[in-house]
Amino acid sequence: MYTVNAYAAPSATEPLEPTTIERRDLGPKDVLIDIAYAGICHSDIHTVRGEWGEIVYPQVVGHEIVGTVAEVGSEVTLHAVGDRVGVGCMVNSCRECENCTAGMENYCLKGNVGTYAGKDKDGTITQGGYAEKIVVVEDFVLRVPESIPYEAAAPLLCAGITTYSPLAHWKVGPGSRVAVVGLGGLGHMAVKIAHAMGAEVTVLSQTLSKKEDGLKMGADHYYATSDPETLKNLRNSFDLIVNTVSAPLDLDAYLRMLALDGTMVNVGAPPEALPLHVFTLFANRRTFAGSSIGSIGETQEMLDFCAEHGIAPEIELIDASQINEAYERVLKSDVRYRFVIDTATLAPAN
Amino acid sequence: MYTVNAYAAPSATEPLEPTTIERRDLGPKDVLIDIAYAGICHSDIHTVRGEWGEIVYPQVVGHEIVGTVAEVGSEVTLHAVGDRVGVGCMVNSCRECENCTAGMENYCLKGNVGTYAGKDKDGTITQGGYAEKIVVVEDFVLRVPESIPYEAAAPLLCAGITTYSPLAHWKVGPGSRVAVVGLGGLGHMAVKIAHAMGAEVTVLSQTLSKKEDGLKMGADHYYATSDPETLKNLRNSFDLIVNTVSAPLDLDAYLRMLALDGTMVNVGAPPEALPLHVFTLFANRRTFAGSSIGSIGETQEMLDFCAEHGIAPEIELIDASQINEAYERVLKSDVRYRFVIDTATLAPAN
Repeated sequence: MYTVNAYAAPSATEPLEPTTIERRDLGPKDVLIDIAYAGICHSDIHTVRGEWGEIVYPQVVGHEIVGTVAEVGSEVTLHAVGDRVGVGCMVNSCRECENCTAGMENYCLKGNVGTYAGKDKDGTITQGGYAEKIVVVEDFVLRVPESIPYEAAAPLLCAGITTYSPLAHWKVGPGSRVAVVGLGGLGHMAVKIAHAMGAEVTVLSQTLSKKEDGLKMGADHYYATSDPETLKNLRNSFDLIVNTVSAPLDLDAYLRMLALDGTMVNVGAPPEALPLHVFTLFANRRTFAGSSIGSIGETQEMLDFCAEHGIAPEIELIDASQINEAYERVLKSDVRYRFVIDTATLAPAN
Repeated sequence: MYTVNAYAAPSATEPLEPTTIERRDLGPKDVLIDIAYAGICHSDIHTVRGEWGEIVYPQVVGHEIVGTVAEVGSEVTLHAVGDRVGVGCMVNSCRECENCTAGMENYCLKGNVGTYAGKDKDGTITQGGYAEKIVVVEDFVLRVPESIPYEAAAPLLCAGITTYSPLAHWKVGPGSRVAVVGLGGLGHMAVKIAHAMGAEVTVLSQTLSKKEDGLKMGADHYYATSDPETLKNLRNSFDLIVNTVSAPLDLDAYLRMLALDGTMVNVGAPPEALPLHVFTLFANRRTFAGSSIGSIGETQEMLDFCAEHGIAPEIELIDASQINEAYERVLKSDVRYRFVIDTATLAPAN
């Protein structure tokens, strides 16, 4: 067992605090990673606050992890000591169901094993990336190309793959008209990736406050959804709308912006039911879809794509002691565009 | 002008009654059709009763029309006198928009011209198929293969194409797992067509009362949705669900039956907004879609497909005098599986 410094939520209502956690001894297929950086995802906050269901405390979250391989199990072939690697939202899956055997372990029918607050195969509760080290089975560990700036690579493991996967699945390329709703952690990656794929990219944000940033990231157009004319003027305009917003919105109004055979795909996760008129879908044979992270294969493809196209997240690097403050800022959408924790700053627990 | 016997709704609340209507003189591209049979679609009832918006009365409905070409305009090249032809839900479109120029006139961005209660290019209100004759521009007239029984062909022009189009668009074939929700006019065609395409077909009907019929039509499985276990037992089971039901249903419960990358497509048209949880779509990357009739090209393809595979609707042939009674029976789902009016029985108006 490895005892490692970490930052954990002691309960749903208290601030995160320094602690130590145990990592398992290396099995033959396991990789021990010295974590260098961990991104802060809005899901981390939903989870520790119990908003997505009850969890066991103390809980370490964080599923945007990059680091260096420190040790490998006896049968590991995919990674070697010293490699720059990453871990995303899952650390295992059943490997037997229809979806796993199709290489889509993110859609494991038994539920993949989440990087944190998940039930691991040995029955323990998984603990995430706000920690010095992590042990992960080798085929859930990604290769992070050296050309991606180390500290900026972490958010690719969730924000990057969550947006890359639908853009790739719905075959975005030159000629595609793509709208990205929301310019946050996910949205800014969607803009960069869609632009690199050759699409004409439109950002739909509440206000124009980030317009300059959006255009720099590769957006061709930028509109404020606070203007009630925006959505009307854009009717029948897009082949794909990637909705990164978790707040409820008027689905019909957004769907009406889709052109023939267009798809609106949610990666934002509003917990409440949203009303939708089927008649909106009849016009232009529209579809409304969901997409959840991406498979390990797609995640590697995304990392290689980002390296090839020189794409990296925009980040604010923080010390572990700033995590609670960062959470408050995430909740106010006051981050450009992702917080990343320098895990070298994880203080030993008292 | 041609004065022809017809059956019209005098208002939203009165029974349909015999009348006469005028058909325009033949333009150079027009075809005059002696109508032989006209199907009764649930849309006819919604329309005459004003449930889908206000209309002008008297109104003749009917958009499942077969007949024989009686006369052609000077420039008509697609059809000849004596040909067996059909007319479906639309008789024209703008021919200029992105969708029309892509050959998808059913999704005309200016709205196609409906066969009834539509505004024709000359400004007149279109009158439908419960009539002796109709004049339609040649490229909205379909060729009806002689091998399809004449009186049974009419429902193909709406019920047939409305179900064929999504089955073809979502590439149903051998290996596809297709569920059809509702075994009415549309549903029974969906079963026959999906079966002919090689799919494994499951019918989901409220009860098992039509099970024997459904299996004869080609269904492999037949379940009652009144049993609360049915939908649970079928989770993650289908590649495509064709929902022909216009009554509101629990979208989440139905969507959960979709396997990886499965689509539920509504051809049934509930007017009210239906609640939907985005989380249901995250699992299996599910999509929810709408589909509206089909293009002229697809409609011809469907007619040829049905001829090739010996597919025809199951009908109850009625006289014009039985139309009002038939409407009441449609509303009670008491028809196996489509009423077709023998238009030879249209009595002259008093």
